[in-house]
Amino acid sequence: MADRGSYMLFFGTGPNKFSAQEHLYPSTSDSRLENGERLEQCAPPIPPIAKPPAPTNLWASLTVPETTSIQKWLESPDRNLNLTRAVDSALSDNVIFIIETFYPPKAEAVAYLAGLGPVPQKYARVPFIRDYLVGPLPVGNDTTMKPLDIYHSHDIPFNARGYVNPNELQSIWSFITPELSDAMQDLFGATARGNANDTLVTGASGPFSFDGKRRRMWFLWRKNVPGPYLHPVNFFMYVDVSGTDPSMWKVLKTVYNHQIYNTLDDFLSAYRNGTLIRTPTRPDTEDYSWTTRKRVGEPRDLDHLPGPRLVSFAGLRFRVDRTTQYVSWMGWGMYLGFDRDMGLSLWDIRLKGERIIYQLAPQEAIAQYSGNDPMQTTTAWQDRYFGMGSAVRDMLPGYDCPLEAVYLPATTYSGLGSIVRERAICVFEMDSGRPVTRHTGYMEGEFGAVKGHLLTVRSISTVGNYDYVFDYMFQIDGTIEVRVSASGYLQGGYWEPSQEGYGGRIRDTTMGNLHDHVINFKVDLDIVGSSNSLLETTTSQESVQQPWFDPIEEEDDDWGSTVIQQKITKRIIETEDESKLKYPANFQGGYAIVNQEEKNSWGSPRGYAINAGYNPIHNTVVGSRRLLNNANWARYNLAVSRRKDTEISSSSMWNMNLPGAPTVDFHRFFDGENIVQEDLVAWVNVGMHHLPHAEDSPNTKTTIAMSSFLLTPLNYFDSDISLDSRNAILLTAPKTPGDNWAYDDNGVKQDFTCIPQQPKPFEYSAFRTYDAEGNLAKPETVEEMRKVAELYHRVKVEL
Amino acid sequence: MADRGSYMLFFGTGPNKFSAQEHLYPSTSDSRLENGERLEQCAPPIPPIAKPPAPTNLWASLTVPETTSIQKWLESPDRNLNLTRAVDSALSDNVIFIIETFYPPKAEAVAYLAGLGPVPQKYARVPFIRDYLVGPLPVGNDTTMKPLDIYHSHDIPFNARGYVNPNELQSIWSFITPELSDAMQDLFGATARGNANDTLVTGASGPFSFDGKRRRMWFLWRKNVPGPYLHPVNFFMYVDVSGTDPSMWKVLKTVYNHQIYNTLDDFLSAYRNGTLIRTPTRPDTEDYSWTTRKRVGEPRDLDHLPGPRLVSFAGLRFRVDRTTQYVSWMGWGMYLGFDRDMGLSLWDIRLKGERIIYQLAPQEAIAQYSGNDPMQTTTAWQDRYFGMGSAVRDMLPGYDCPLEAVYLPATTYSGLGSIVRERAICVFEMDSGRPVTRHTGYMEGEFGAVKGHLLTVRSISTVGNYDYVFDYMFQIDGTIEVRVSASGYLQGGYWEPSQEGYGGRIRDTTMGNLHDHVINFKVDLDIVGSSNSLLETTTSQESVQQPWFDPIEEEDDDWGSTVIQQKITKRIIETEDESKLKYPANFQGGYAIVNQEEKNSWGSPRGYAINAGYNPIHNTVVGSRRLLNNANWARYNLAVSRRKDTEISSSSMWNMNLPGAPTVDFHRFFDGENIVQEDLVAWVNVGMHHLPHAEDSPNTKTTIAMSSFLLTPLNYFDSDISLDSRNAILLTAPKTPGDNWAYDDNGVKQDFTCIPQQPKPFEYSAFRTYDAEGNLAKPETVEEMRKVAELYHRVKVEL
Repeated sequence: MADRGSYMLFFGTGPNKFSAQEHLYPSTSDSRLENGERLEQCAPPIPPIAKPPAPTNLWASLTVPETTSIQKWLESPDRNLNLTRAVDSALSDNVIFIIETFYPPKAEAVAYLAGLGPVPQKYARVPFIRDYLVGPLPVGNDTTMKPLDIYHSHDIPFNARGYVNPNELQSIWSFITPELSDAMQDLFGATARGNANDTLVTGASGPFSFDGKRRRMWFLWRKNVPGPYLHPVNFFMYVDVSGTDPSMWKVLKTVYNHQIYNTLDDFLSAYRNGTLIRTPTRPDTEDYSWTTRKRVGEPRDLDHLPGPRLVSFAGLRFRVDRTTQYVSWMGWGMYLGFDRDMGLSLWDIRLKGERIIYQLAPQEAIAQYSGNDPMQTTTAWQDRYFGMGSAVRDMLPGYDCPLEAVYLPATTYSGLGSIVRERAICVFEMDSGRPVTRHTGYMEGEFGAVKGHLLTVRSISTVGNYDYVFDYMFQIDGTIEVRVSASGYLQGGYWEPSQEGYGGRIRDTTMGNLHDHVINFKVDLDIVGSSNSLLETTTSQESVQQPWFDPIEEEDDDWGSTVIQQKITKRIIETEDESKLKYPANFQGGYAIVNQEEKNSWGSPRGYAINAGYNPIHNTVVGSRRLLNNANWARYNLAVSRRKDTEISSSSMWNMNLPGAPTVDFHRFFDGENIVQEDLVAWVNVGMHHLPHAEDSPNTKTTIAMSSFLLTPLNYFDSDISLDSRNAILLTAPKTPGDNWAYDDNGVKQDFTCIPQQPKPFEYSAFRTYDAEGNLAKPETVEEMRKVAELYHRVKVEL
Repeated sequence: MADRGSYMLFFGTGPNKFSAQEHLYPSTSDSRLENGERLEQCAPPIPPIAKPPAPTNLWASLTVPETTSIQKWLESPDRNLNLTRAVDSALSDNVIFIIETFYPPKAEAVAYLAGLGPVPQKYARVPFIRDYLVGPLPVGNDTTMKPLDIYHSHDIPFNARGYVNPNELQSIWSFITPELSDAMQDLFGATARGNANDTLVTGASGPFSFDGKRRRMWFLWRKNVPGPYLHPVNFFMYVDVSGTDPSMWKVLKTVYNHQIYNTLDDFLSAYRNGTLIRTPTRPDTEDYSWTTRKRVGEPRDLDHLPGPRLVSFAGLRFRVDRTTQYVSWMGWGMYLGFDRDMGLSLWDIRLKGERIIYQLAPQEAIAQYSGNDPMQTTTAWQDRYFGMGSAVRDMLPGYDCPLEAVYLPATTYSGLGSIVRERAICVFEMDSGRPVTRHTGYMEGEFGAVKGHLLTVRSISTVGNYDYVFDYMFQIDGTIEVRVSASGYLQGGYWEPSQEGYGGRIRDTTMGNLHDHVINFKVDLDIVGSSNSLLETTTSQESVQQPWFDPIEEEDDDWGSTVIQQKITKRIIETEDESKLKYPANFQGGYAIVNQEEKNSWGSPRGYAINAGYNPIHNTVVGSRRLLNNANWARYNLAVSRRKDTEISSSSMWNMNLPGAPTVDFHRFFDGENIVQEDLVAWVNVGMHHLPHAEDSPNTKTTIAMSSFLLTPLNYFDSDISLDSRNAILLTAPKTPGDNWAYDDNGVKQDFTCIPQQPKPFEYSAFRTYDAEGNLAKPETVEEMRKVAELYHRVKVEL
């Protein structure tokens, strides 16, 4: 049962104390049934408190008071940094882009977790123009700042910078003349004049820069209606927004219906003199209801009823320590981390007390498009740039996660202030619907089943049009599935016959453009310590003579002495020269991280295998200048390198805009080093070749737009550990035929029933923002929220 | 709410009326809470009755009265068949092996379903030596029998026959002399003397025959303990059991610890004279507890509590018509079929009233082994031979399926009598735990989620050592996932260093042998009728000049006019010469069944795609004589052929024992016919390269031993149909910043709560058997059940 005494602790004074934990089940008093049944009121589904192995979460986000104190320390005249607050800044000002936890060196962290060292000194990462390391924290007399030198290019070009101020592009709009607005109104039935009622908006393509020399983007114009991503009007502009002086910005090219103009004047002349060839009528841009999520169509049979709901009648079985953001379940335990770039990460994942993974964290998400227009064809997003952590959204209880899920908050800093989202992470247990193991047998001990359960830790990022659901799913046998599912809106294009081959038509003249998603995960497995090796297993056919078979020539044998069968070959991959990997054809073999010096009882090196799950793909396109060297991890299914505190990530927020001169050049991790019994990191990809079709409209479906990999014990144990489960049953045959079978359910009644708490009604409030002083800011309008949320993906003209 | 008025109908007089439907929730009277809360008692989770499109299930199994009447008709002297009841038969007698529904020709079935034709005449399939067709049914004056000519070889050799009588091998045991038993006792610490206390049992390898000329099998001796499959004693015999005269049967070879003897006398001589080299000590065969499923190890934290349970508070949302075995859910509807060979099949699967699949049915399951011993290396099981339908087992409520699942019965005939299993099939709805679609947006209609639910139809076959979980999972967007999960015992081998490469060591001297599972499904898609084509889609990289880009030579551009991107190529595969398919490298493309003459509103041919799911593999080994031409479907990921009533299955029960002369030669389906706008069948594989490791002991885990494919709409609709869901939410931003968001939940309260029914306590009874007269037979002893269940996989010596 949930520990009622622990309830108040969730309102405690941990670093994320900005609100009490949200409970969907209020506490109520006991109730009895009138008819004498014994059903009692269930305890509220509140998780018991987890006990982390060490009291400090080394990977916790900084709190608002912490970032505020660092901000003030940096702004102090003693630092001599000449800083302007981002919210008030001009492009030429020095601003703080982010203040964030810098993760401690692994050796220090591991020593601390083992009780062999102090809490590592805490540092904050503070890039402006470049990354600085500030610490130790909290801010005090010994706090210093020094450049952070972990990148392959030290000076990050200003043109590759992150998005500070949602208004930073506004200076370009001077080209929006009344004449242009009128022409657009005529051509598209909608226009932009730089006011609130604008019926057109624009969105940019990325990368914006090749090597930082300049910053240029293609603007795509779209209807300013719900789901604008599916309402492009076939009108494009190439703009130069390089440098810090907006007066130098300009429109370089204008494209309408395959007609290309070097100046806006040329375009307007063609419009005026009637030589402009117009696009055909577009019925799908007249009515925008099809790009909303409003319910349509005949309801289905019995769909007026809510579907089945997961109820933990006897109480939740996972523990959460809100103070340290530590979660435990069935012998699993992990700290949660959260950062601006990629959001949720998992640390020090242990099973039955033994660390299996030091760090499990997404690194980057690319989406590379194709098309026959200037915008799609130039798009190769890397969503770390936009901040998949700051793009995490509060989840919808009962819809995004089951009703019983427990939510945890996350705080992200930006130059404009900090955002606290209460439902940034959800944790829930599910009936997997499928036994982990089972057998129907007849002798004593043969017949039974172990029930399947999953613990899921989830976070959802909405980066402009797309929604990414990140799931970490734990099973009791030691298996972890990491899955990313995609939903949200396609980045739509204008359909015409010349687009054939570049996507799928989803409406009369609207298409979803062909693109690849690839998402990279850092999997820092530690198999019985951090000295590990990479085991490659392959299977292939052999033809072999076996002595116990007679040759086929003898008339009375059918088979012959030659056997054709398969055989396993194992090899330790010795250096980083051979550790950039693809899954073998027909998946005949695979990869595992093993400890060659630690054997299980049967002499096999203990290990964890990395198994392909759904959609085990890598990026299709190699050599595009728009993804030249800044996402080389995407060329493989996985790669394994020596772990280093100087190679902490396969990407960086600046990588998107530096394909020719990346801040992190993944290939440089692979410099021939020996990887035998060393600390290793597996960089594992999930992804999807997205060939859109009509059913991607209005939103892409997670039923098929998803991908995963699985980590499973490989001779890590001596036998299946799920056999220790008490949620299991064993049957014994009756002595007398026809009698029922006897059973042992380990005292755990699956049918245990009590009167559930009435969940709290649905409620959805906006996140809270804090200004740079650490004060609660006034709530944002929806337009303000939207501007920050949709970034370059939907830019509204403001004059 | 569940329709209480319909409750009694489940006890009705349909063809499967052998028992009332089993309800885990007894009906109770209403209850009120004392404290004035409004929670009311939930209705019992009983499914409302489904409404099949046509009142007869054309694919229903024959009932026991039906098979009995056919049996008697066949046994009538008028037929002149000289039949002996199988239970009393000698090998030389004529026996009926099976009496089963013969599925009507598709054209007749489709006409009937469309209301355009009568119920097709019912026929029964009756093979003995060969297949006969008996009908029309019920038996009457116009009933006739005629040979069934749908196979590639008409006369099925007796040596390839199915397993009729579990005692049929007993005549071979005359070689078990007291001296041999004593020697075995000394060598293995266990022996067989042909009595009930035997401590050794044997098991056979298959196939037993190459082309039917003879029948020979390798016997592997094992400890007669729970989980015998993991206790081989490294002792093998090659026996000839050809023909109908057991006096001709003999032992051809004996192998012990790599020492080969042509006669048992030679083996015994070596034993006597001390030249026999013994195997080393084997600690893992001394104690057999590790091969049981008994709970071991420290219980995990909070595992004394039952996990979360699915509860349909407002009533079940799927319908079941027990009379016709028709299931419907959320616009989906399907008839269930069931046969001896492969068990559960799904027919006339419709979505929103339109047929999408005529037949979805497993065809065969192979398991081809490797090893360095004479048994494993000769094993290439085809489980259709053993009867995956008759191997279906009653499921364990709450463990094999969630507690709320509804069970349906299945009846299988064998020469020994008919078996009725009440829990042969389970149907349940789950919260998928993941929204189908979702987006966080800010304009009206952009923000919301559609909740994910799954309807699963499941059946579990235990074929000797292995358990196969067959899942058909339906989603509201039109996606179907077909998944097979494996559990149960490995077919273990004797571990010694010379086995390196042939499997994984799971105990001191026990191994799991390397093997491939491949399971074939018939997917008879009908996309807007049965005139369909096979669409191949591929993506590849292109390098293309685009006019709106400047050449890179101009100093001021970073990108150049050449774009490297990917492009889609579509092709209709025109003939069966090109329709045996593998998934492309990196899954760059795929396959779909489309109707070229039926377009959606945007001009795309309507279709369904066949997507790889988990473990998308095909068989590794090609060319082994043990699988020479009898499972050629396993060489591909999928294959598409013209649908014919004469090519009803990719395999047959006799295929296993005819690798050189198969009854069904899959490759002969592919004879160059045109497959453009024809009735097509996709033969789709799932499978697994099983490289066993320590965690496969005692039982293989479904967490990783599973495989699937997905069928998804591909421009079948104009947009995502899940948007019609009422289990969905739409949010609207507040006008006043800081207010809660408004929401529309379509009137469906996810938090609807009532007092659940207390489920009926766990209970497990044996199946019922009927004799050939149709009378209820007396319940079997556990040893009798076991003998029939484990077939050749565990044979006990009886003298």
